[in-house]
Amino acid sequence: MDEHIKVMPKPSNREKILTEGLRVVHERGFAHASVRDIVQAAGVPQGSFTNHFVSKEAFGLEILDLYYSGTYGSRLAILRNEALAPLDRLRAYVEASRDRLNNGGMRAGCLLGNFTADSSEHSEPIRERLVELYGQTQQAIAECLAAAVASGALPAETDCMELAGVIQTSMQGAILMAKAQLSTAPVDRFLRVLFEKILR
Amino acid sequence: MDEHIKVMPKPSNREKILTEGLRVVHERGFAHASVRDIVQAAGVPQGSFTNHFVSKEAFGLEILDLYYSGTYGSRLAILRNEALAPLDRLRAYVEASRDRLNNGGMRAGCLLGNFTADSSEHSEPIRERLVELYGQTQQAIAECLAAAVASGALPAETDCMELAGVIQTSMQGAILMAKAQLSTAPVDRFLRVLFEKILR
Repeated sequence: MDEHIKVMPKPSNREKILTEGLRVVHERGFAHASVRDIVQAAGVPQGSFTNHFVSKEAFGLEILDLYYSGTYGSRLAILRNEALAPLDRLRAYVEASRDRLNNGGMRAGCLLGNFTADSSEHSEPIRERLVELYGQTQQAIAECLAAAVASGALPAETDCMELAGVIQTSMQGAILMAKAQLSTAPVDRFLRVLFEKILR
Repeated sequence: MDEHIKVMPKPSNREKILTEGLRVVHERGFAHASVRDIVQAAGVPQGSFTNHFVSKEAFGLEILDLYYSGTYGSRLAILRNEALAPLDRLRAYVEASRDRLNNGGMRAGCLLGNFTADSSEHSEPIRERLVELYGQTQQAIAECLAAAVASGALPAETDCMELAGVIQTSMQGAILMAKAQLSTAPVDRFLRVLFEKILR
């Protein structure tokens, strides 16, 4: 084998199921998306799903991780972009979350929020994974707020973890409302109140 | 017939399906609760469902209204309780929403939020009804805020509808997180930030 020839490997059935499955679940919800829907979207035989995943729950846990390490994670990285002042990063993070809603006509919402509403009481492993991922998000926002405190943009007595938790859940709620109203207005409203009242 | 004898009518199959169906859907989610689950919980024959509801969607619209006119509506009434100062009403409303989460071990969350996450992209009539009910909630909060402005507890330039929208969506997000974490801490955090920062 010539080591200089790099061949892009064809995606495996497992990868196709994860990539297309994530898209289908994000659009339709985990409860609504059947295994048949997922394998059809991936263009693989139905048996392929059970070859690669011991259960729909195991598949659900993997797409949560894929989402978190993908687009969701790339938005979180904005919070650590030291080219911007800390509160500018926070604004850019909320704006990126809002702008992403326009993909798919705002109907998809946040995958984590959707899983929480429709699956957290049906699967303890999924609920626990959601809590972990939410915790990591809260931590990333809190570190950005701590940088704002260090730079003097927020008062020294700011409880960064508490405030980060409220910012995180308020964004989730605004994104849920955007999905109902098919409008980003709820996120814009939150952004104004965040900068005019909460962080002033 | 003797008009002095008042007989409490037995609940009809339709009423049983609505009451027990609301409970089952609130616990399991609309997508997860099958018609079979609902008629089993109601203790009525399966055919009874199709006798009374043209579709699961029609049933979903009715339980949304039942929820809104029931426990949800009684919480909204707190916002109009003139025995309390306006901002005390708002605090009591958030606290009542939090305390209600303890029923069912916090797993149920808010029926409107759950419907939004799991069903609003599958049914346009359900999405539209959710938007109406959310609009009525926002209006009730805004009127309470307007009363606070009138009493001098909030500045005259307060944009009551905007602020009401943010309070509403932030509560939804905090309730969603309570459902994930099985803890009312997210709602308590929001309550502190609301009174210490947003309304100060």
